[in-house]
Amino acid sequence: MADERPDLLLARPTPFLVVDPEVLRGNVASMAADAARRGVALRPHAKTHKSADVAALQLAAGAVGLTVATVSEAEAFADAGCEDLFVAYPLWVDAAKGVRLRALAERVTISVGTDSTEGARALAAQLPGGRVLVEVDSGHHRSGVAPDDAGAVAEAAQRAGLDVLGVFTFPGHSYAPGAAAEVAAQEALALRTAVTSMTRHGAEPRVVSGGSTPTVAQADATVLTEMRPGVYVFNDAQQWELGTVGPERVALTCLATVVSHGEGTVVLDAGSKVLGADRPSWTTGWGRLLDHPGARVTLLSEHHAVVGWDGSPLPPLGQRVRVVPNHVCNAVNLADELVLTTGETWPVTARGANT
Amino acid sequence: MADERPDLLLARPTPFLVVDPEVLRGNVASMAADAARRGVALRPHAKTHKSADVAALQLAAGAVGLTVATVSEAEAFADAGCEDLFVAYPLWVDAAKGVRLRALAERVTISVGTDSTEGARALAAQLPGGRVLVEVDSGHHRSGVAPDDAGAVAEAAQRAGLDVLGVFTFPGHSYAPGAAAEVAAQEALALRTAVTSMTRHGAEPRVVSGGSTPTVAQADATVLTEMRPGVYVFNDAQQWELGTVGPERVALTCLATVVSHGEGTVVLDAGSKVLGADRPSWTTGWGRLLDHPGARVTLLSEHHAVVGWDGSPLPPLGQRVRVVPNHVCNAVNLADELVLTTGETWPVTARGANT
Repeated sequence: MADERPDLLLARPTPFLVVDPEVLRGNVASMAADAARRGVALRPHAKTHKSADVAALQLAAGAVGLTVATVSEAEAFADAGCEDLFVAYPLWVDAAKGVRLRALAERVTISVGTDSTEGARALAAQLPGGRVLVEVDSGHHRSGVAPDDAGAVAEAAQRAGLDVLGVFTFPGHSYAPGAAAEVAAQEALALRTAVTSMTRHGAEPRVVSGGSTPTVAQADATVLTEMRPGVYVFNDAQQWELGTVGPERVALTCLATVVSHGEGTVVLDAGSKVLGADRPSWTTGWGRLLDHPGARVTLLSEHHAVVGWDGSPLPPLGQRVRVVPNHVCNAVNLADELVLTTGETWPVTARGANT
Repeated sequence: MADERPDLLLARPTPFLVVDPEVLRGNVASMAADAARRGVALRPHAKTHKSADVAALQLAAGAVGLTVATVSEAEAFADAGCEDLFVAYPLWVDAAKGVRLRALAERVTISVGTDSTEGARALAAQLPGGRVLVEVDSGHHRSGVAPDDAGAVAEAAQRAGLDVLGVFTFPGHSYAPGAAAEVAAQEALALRTAVTSMTRHGAEPRVVSGGSTPTVAQADATVLTEMRPGVYVFNDAQQWELGTVGPERVALTCLATVVSHGEGTVVLDAGSKVLGADRPSWTTGWGRLLDHPGARVTLLSEHHAVVGWDGSPLPPLGQRVRVVPNHVCNAVNLADELVLTTGETWPVTARGANT
């Protein structure tokens, strides 16, 4: 860690989130280079970092704009100077949300998601001529219409006066060991099917958008025009365990202090209120230790992480260790600021921007 | 819900946390009455609500003080006027934490936890004569010494010049179906054993403190002098599923909007960034719907809750529903404020107070 200022990190009370800017910059650059090499636009999902500083790095590296999940995230990044935002979410646009979307449309290029005729009509009533992408379900079974139904939604959206830019999907079922290649193929098939369906219905997609951090490396550049990975800027224990990256690509950790010893275990002062409580069934615990790959967080409370140690001597009480959260997006959203290893702090600009 | 102002709740963009103050006041009053009837002091854990307003209700109902988990929570509640605070945590007290503890001790009555000779000595070096309780493990296997070892830690703490008030435990293994009675018995046995051990070592416990929301009703008042439940003020889906309370005692929900329909499912705009991601293996989902007991959150992302509906017709897009989070402590810590059904808002005073 170049430019590390351990004195600053040691003086600050734990637990807190630390970012290694050198690893972060490497992650940003390599994703940008990969997208450029494959001729696919990169529109990173800003929900991961919620940081104007990280967004600036991504845009400087060639991102065409940002993806966000909520209107309030769009507002936060518009305030931060981002000029092209996509709300990758099937918004239900009531009158209050309409006021906010119209205000955004006056100052930035904004597009939003829809996955129903009703949703598209509600949007059109509030944001006439608004830019929209139809969401399709590529197998994650969250939101999104079946790919064959994309055309009908697109046609209804066009009839309601919306500008249908294209189609998007989130292949979130890529979060399972060994799933990435198959899920990337499902993503490509779903998007291709949706494009055919939309074309039949008179809506020629200009944007075909997909991508999650586990699948981007295998995303089909003959189908996708745009990728929306988010987690790659920091990575986390899920990506490490999926094999998307090795621990050397983890840019964000939680600095925590050993406060108690058990039999072969230590207790850290970092719990679910700083790490988040995510614990998919396929993960080996509630998080890992960057410098002790054999250790696992085997029990997580709000302010305790019980760590099954790796067989080496237990670290003494008071020692600080680096915990890799399972899901970095939720960890970041719990913090008011990110502390760089250089001592600088970056505010979590869009923390709590859920609406 | 008396004094409900649905117009205010309908105007505010979802998702957000709503508190029914009538249910809250009932929960506060009934726990206070139960403690008084049994002659046990009530020191509620403020980590659940992090709210000066809720703390004021608890103290007005007879609580002897508050329990907190961190020094920064103690600082927040001291600022809010609470005069007696117990940090129920085995703090590692370095010089920086020492400065803060000494500042607290000058303005409030503060006691802290310890579960090691080393930890007690570090505390004594920073807070000479400080008030301490020894933590014992009653079966949760998180922090705390074995009950038989409580005397040795207490003796070391006394020799280091600390004022050993007594002993405490958190019977967190009560969070499992049908476990409450057995765990309450284990709690009582562990505390009784610790008292014997401490007495043998010349430390006569004045405070014998236990209790978790699932066990307080069965806590042994012949052993415990103090109970520290937290969740009971609001309750949550975990308490509902454990049978600690019925849904009529749930005082906090997340108001969310239906944004998408699947086959027998709806998608809500409330995800892990407002509900928290807690999902113990024995729960039936990531949360429940207060007005639809048969529905379950079967998939939770950051901004999507996929809800398996209860067989009744799906609610239309745009409808607002009340979600009961699995773990209310983590949901509250994600919010900047709580919205009362009366329209009033209460700040989450100690949100993010992790240090």
